[in-house]
Amino acid sequence: MKRGFGSDNHSGISPEIMQAIADANVDHALAYGDDEWCQRTEELFRDYFGPQAKVYFVFNGTGANVLNIDLMCHSHEAVVCAETAHINVDECGAPQRVVGCRLLTVDTPDGKLTPELVKTRLHGFGFEHHSQPRAISITQSTELGTLYTLDEIRALAGLAHSYNMFLHMDGARLANAAVALGCSFKEMTTDCGVDCLSFGGTKNGMLMGESVVLLNPALDVDVKYRRKQMTQLSSKMRFVAAQFEAYLATSLWKRNAEHSNNMAQLLYQEVSRIEGVRVMYPVHVNSVFAQLPTEVWHSLQQEYFFYDWDEANDVVRWMCSFDTTEQDIRDFANVLRRLMK
Amino acid sequence: MKRGFGSDNHSGISPEIMQAIADANVDHALAYGDDEWCQRTEELFRDYFGPQAKVYFVFNGTGANVLNIDLMCHSHEAVVCAETAHINVDECGAPQRVVGCRLLTVDTPDGKLTPELVKTRLHGFGFEHHSQPRAISITQSTELGTLYTLDEIRALAGLAHSYNMFLHMDGARLANAAVALGCSFKEMTTDCGVDCLSFGGTKNGMLMGESVVLLNPALDVDVKYRRKQMTQLSSKMRFVAAQFEAYLATSLWKRNAEHSNNMAQLLYQEVSRIEGVRVMYPVHVNSVFAQLPTEVWHSLQQEYFFYDWDEANDVVRWMCSFDTTEQDIRDFANVLRRLMK
Amino acid sequence: MKRGFGSDNHSGISPEIMQAIADANVDHALAYGDDEWCQRTEELFRDYFGPQAKVYFVFNGTGANVLNIDLMCHSHEAVVCAETAHINVDECGAPQRVVGCRLLTVDTPDGKLTPELVKTRLHGFGFEHHSQPRAISITQSTELGTLYTLDEIRALAGLAHSYNMFLHMDGARLANAAVALGCSFKEMTTDCGVDCLSFGGTKNGMLMGESVVLLNPALDVDVKYRRKQMTQLSSKMRFVAAQFEAYLATSLWKRNAEHSNNMAQLLYQEVSRIEGVRVMYPVHVNSVFAQLPTEVWHSLQQEYFFYDWDEANDVVRWMCSFDTTEQDIRDFANVLRRLMK
Amino acid sequence: MKRGFGSDNHSGISPEIMQAIADANVDHALAYGDDEWCQRTEELFRDYFGPQAKVYFVFNGTGANVLNIDLMCHSHEAVVCAETAHINVDECGAPQRVVGCRLLTVDTPDGKLTPELVKTRLHGFGFEHHSQPRAISITQSTELGTLYTLDEIRALAGLAHSYNMFLHMDGARLANAAVALGCSFKEMTTDCGVDCLSFGGTKNGMLMGESVVLLNPALDVDVKYRRKQMTQLSSKMRFVAAQFEAYLATSLWKRNAEHSNNMAQLLYQEVSRIEGVRVMYPVHVNSVFAQLPTEVWHSLQQEYFFYDWDEANDVVRWMCSFDTTEQDIRDFANVLRRLMK
Repeated sequence: MKRGFGSDNHSGISPEIMQAIADANVDHALAYGDDEWCQRTEELFRDYFGPQAKVYFVFNGTGANVLNIDLMCHSHEAVVCAETAHINVDECGAPQRVVGCRLLTVDTPDGKLTPELVKTRLHGFGFEHHSQPRAISITQSTELGTLYTLDEIRALAGLAHSYNMFLHMDGARLANAAVALGCSFKEMTTDCGVDCLSFGGTKNGMLMGESVVLLNPALDVDVKYRRKQMTQLSSKMRFVAAQFEAYLATSLWKRNAEHSNNMAQLLYQEVSRIEGVRVMYPVHVNSVFAQLPTEVWHSLQQEYFFYDWDEANDVVRWMCSFDTTEQDIRDFANVLRRLMK
Repeated sequence: MKRGFGSDNHSGISPEIMQAIADANVDHALAYGDDEWCQRTEELFRDYFGPQAKVYFVFNGTGANVLNIDLMCHSHEAVVCAETAHINVDECGAPQRVVGCRLLTVDTPDGKLTPELVKTRLHGFGFEHHSQPRAISITQSTELGTLYTLDEIRALAGLAHSYNMFLHMDGARLANAAVALGCSFKEMTTDCGVDCLSFGGTKNGMLMGESVVLLNPALDVDVKYRRKQMTQLSSKMRFVAAQFEAYLATSLWKRNAEHSNNMAQLLYQEVSRIEGVRVMYPVHVNSVFAQLPTEVWHSLQQEYFFYDWDEANDVVRWMCSFDTTEQDIRDFANVLRRLMK
Repeated sequence: MKRGFGSDNHSGISPEIMQAIADANVDHALAYGDDEWCQRTEELFRDYFGPQAKVYFVFNGTGANVLNIDLMCHSHEAVVCAETAHINVDECGAPQRVVGCRLLTVDTPDGKLTPELVKTRLHGFGFEHHSQPRAISITQSTELGTLYTLDEIRALAGLAHSYNMFLHMDGARLANAAVALGCSFKEMTTDCGVDCLSFGGTKNGMLMGESVVLLNPALDVDVKYRRKQMTQLSSKMRFVAAQFEAYLATSLWKRNAEHSNNMAQLLYQEVSRIEGVRVMYPVHVNSVFAQLPTEVWHSLQQEYFFYDWDEANDVVRWMCSFDTTEQDIRDFANVLRRLMK
Repeated sequence: MKRGFGSDNHSGISPEIMQAIADANVDHALAYGDDEWCQRTEELFRDYFGPQAKVYFVFNGTGANVLNIDLMCHSHEAVVCAETAHINVDECGAPQRVVGCRLLTVDTPDGKLTPELVKTRLHGFGFEHHSQPRAISITQSTELGTLYTLDEIRALAGLAHSYNMFLHMDGARLANAAVALGCSFKEMTTDCGVDCLSFGGTKNGMLMGESVVLLNPALDVDVKYRRKQMTQLSSKMRFVAAQFEAYLATSLWKRNAEHSNNMAQLLYQEVSRIEGVRVMYPVHVNSVFAQLPTEVWHSLQQEYFFYDWDEANDVVRWMCSFDTTEQDIRDFANVLRRLMK
């Protein structure tokens, strides 16, 4: 399939990641994480997130999010999140089934929670008929391509902690956010008071690799049993760790994210010049949300796969990847330009 | 780590599998299974298991087993299995948490269920206080390295169906069993009346690849949602499918399993000649269970990692892999011989 | 505690119900529903709801609602309901924990769903990342004291069925609704296309008695096991059935509901004449929602227990019961009048 | 239905309990436990079990057992119990569904765990593939009518605590056990180191009343939310508390249990004199298990309802109740005597 803009998981594997997998394919290693690749990579996570950081590798983003929620909440507790949060709309109810808790959702204009919005759900404490709010979950960058500033994250962490709650960050695209903000992972998480993180690599060049990063040691309880019981323990874990080692040790995360962010900027420039195309949100990371006539995006989908995001309002989503080329964008823009006429 | 006999998941990736992953790393592909690798590999599964076979790729064996159980049973129903079954003792309670059902376990001398043993748990039908037996689960080859003959499988399927129950096969080592029995996968499953199968590749040379294979179309209901909700949906699924394609299209499964079975035979011959070592079960596949003095296996573990299987009785487990060499075995036997003196 | 307006479950037991319990206290009876009281009462339910109606007695409203949801939905499916629905805000997440499904909530002005509102949540069918909408749940009368007309119920049932979904009615106060609408239970449920009902008696004079009433026989599958497994099976069930027998056989439900509805009308008349008190919704059943100054309702709570309903907007809830007297209302209004000065 | 020996929940309500319900039926009371009956009865529980005892009322024994298990165990943990335990064979998998944990069962000759038997399941600590043993559950008196002595309970508590585990007692028939042992509830629970108790009244004369009694304050965490979320919160709770008040304040528990125990002794004497009837276990409490020819107990069931306990071995169970009379027993023995000829 030709390269398109359907999703950043339509791309394949970064060459550096492939090489790391091949390099790890030597002799034998203990299974389930007791190997040298996991040890070295855990050390890298401490370098990146601070000495108290503890990482647990999992298979996918759903697994990382559900495990984090399970560590923060009992089933009678609840997570406050944006209505658009991946954990709410794109996990087919995995938190409800596996953890059994409620999500308290908030409508937002741009996919971002604010302390004011969160406070609308912070009531009923001590009332046994109500699920008890226990965590706030934010996505960085958000499902709409928007970004939380460090101050905004800090404010939400402060709010959470003042209510004895935790702050979780879904960082499926954390690298794109770090590049866009020009900050380190640690500045954006540990230093802001984030308690736990779903840190993903699959959307930025890995074959398959996600992780739960615990920044608050109070959450590091019985994690290995819970990961196993929810079916997220891999046996040949060295091949997940090796991917993260390549990702972190050589700043591959940064190079790939910079590239896909830059490509999204180029795509934004190209399509925003086409009359009748309206870009919906500021483009900071690797996505462009655009509104355009129904028949146009229907026709465009004949040549390129992409998701309608809000069918009722003719909004579609285009994503750039680590392997998107300038030519890919020009070709796409040309087709769109032709269809808009 | 030097090659040892701790587990068949301590080995790495077969070169053919590595090549298949590399070959699949081209351009873009739709995520979540809508790609050409999945299509081709699904066709291969139909070739192997019959035209009605339907395959769903998952991450690991726990995921495959739990998804199969979820398709067979409601939470108020139950699965009859051997006390030693992986789903009972080695999933940290995943079926209980994710499906919510009971396992009705049976003590066995050799890890194998028989109709007589199963019948001891088939009562209480219609009685609302009792979980209703709805499935039988067997492991082929078993956790103890023993094998069900085709007739034995057929008898259990017949029993299951006569009670309106399903027969599930945990085939984490199905290739080793097929080689040992000299039969095809289809002869051992579909043709015997098996309703659903957990078919694994990770223990026989894959990086990471397991699958749910539905042979009874009645079980093929809402599977994609359930797989997603229990956190077992992979995004870049082409890289799982590509592994299975290489595994099945070129009989890699057979070459690897033949090799590890043969190596276990050699290991058996070597260790059974050492005085004081007692091999516990017939060696048909790639495992050898042996009883030897406590201090000997403790000392041996200083040089080689392996699991004690039944510590109270000094029984340990040694596994061979697709990459085990004759020299590995002679070196190991030499160390053991020295320690036994 | 003196009679007040905190909740219709602050009242005790109707004398007729007490008598029925005493009358059932003879000799022995089989447990778990195989007794003559259950048989007779099941017949009464068929008289009231139609010949295909099937009743299952449970302990409380949470149990009835969760069992109904479990019968309609798998964990990967979802129930559309009002944000204010009891199943959403007042079950501490019981549907999420016990069934594992999602609730898709809709903001409403008056606690009532409409086809238009429901349709905003009917998307993502066939998309494995989204919980699949499978049921609509409405409360009659609603948590805000409003009522669905028969036409409105019929329209929602039609919508549900056109999407292969079910319509559930939470009828914790069904008697109050039937009296207010001047219709029978059957006209309001079976005849409108309601598939299943939580039919309650506790709020209208019973000691403890709720029920799941299945009007669509397709839902009557394995119910007894599910009721047991979710901890809702009572042993001496004759004493629940006997309460419902007294409730239904002699139109006690009607007399009690008429009385509490009438008392709410009187309360409405009394308080709406007090300057500064604003009644929020039309008063059709046994509740009055009123807005009044913070310090006034705080002071009033010193003498009478009642819930603030919307603290941010100074809205409180007052409920009448089967045993509320006119004098109770006048006394209450006098206190309120005094405080408002 | 004439009085028989099917179960101690086939009997009705003790007159003193009926009176207590009627006496509590005055005016209004706050719902969900904030009433004077609950307060007084909680005080009574402290009198009976010690000042640290905390009681939570629930609907039924399944609810009490599941709530206790939920307080002791996370889903990745496990409860060691007898194969014959009610939580294992008679809850239709409620612990598995609601808590998600495993039960590690032990075969016993008489329904009683011993430290030696329990230790056979205490392994795999720290191994993430195994559910972690976290609690021991015993039933007093057992499902087979046998009794733990105080020393035996103490030994199991000691074992549990030495492994950082809890000891739970299922006391559905605790009154019968206390009478048989001639000890107080406190001597049999708190003083022996029991951590939590399911304390039942329904089988000994209540309409419906069970409770969770926490003796170890470490378990008293978030209980009210969990009780609500698992559907076990009653609204008009005064009527449950009032039953327990009558039960405890006037030693009704003792009078009723003494009577049913005595009746079982009489029944034992009568039937053990009949040739061909073999009583299976020592008769200490209110049950008699007997072995007799298939055709005889089949014929006897034409006149009296009772359960076969072990159909394969022709063992049946007969239970006496608080309302069993000597004449009931003589009539029953006469029928049996006639059939045995």
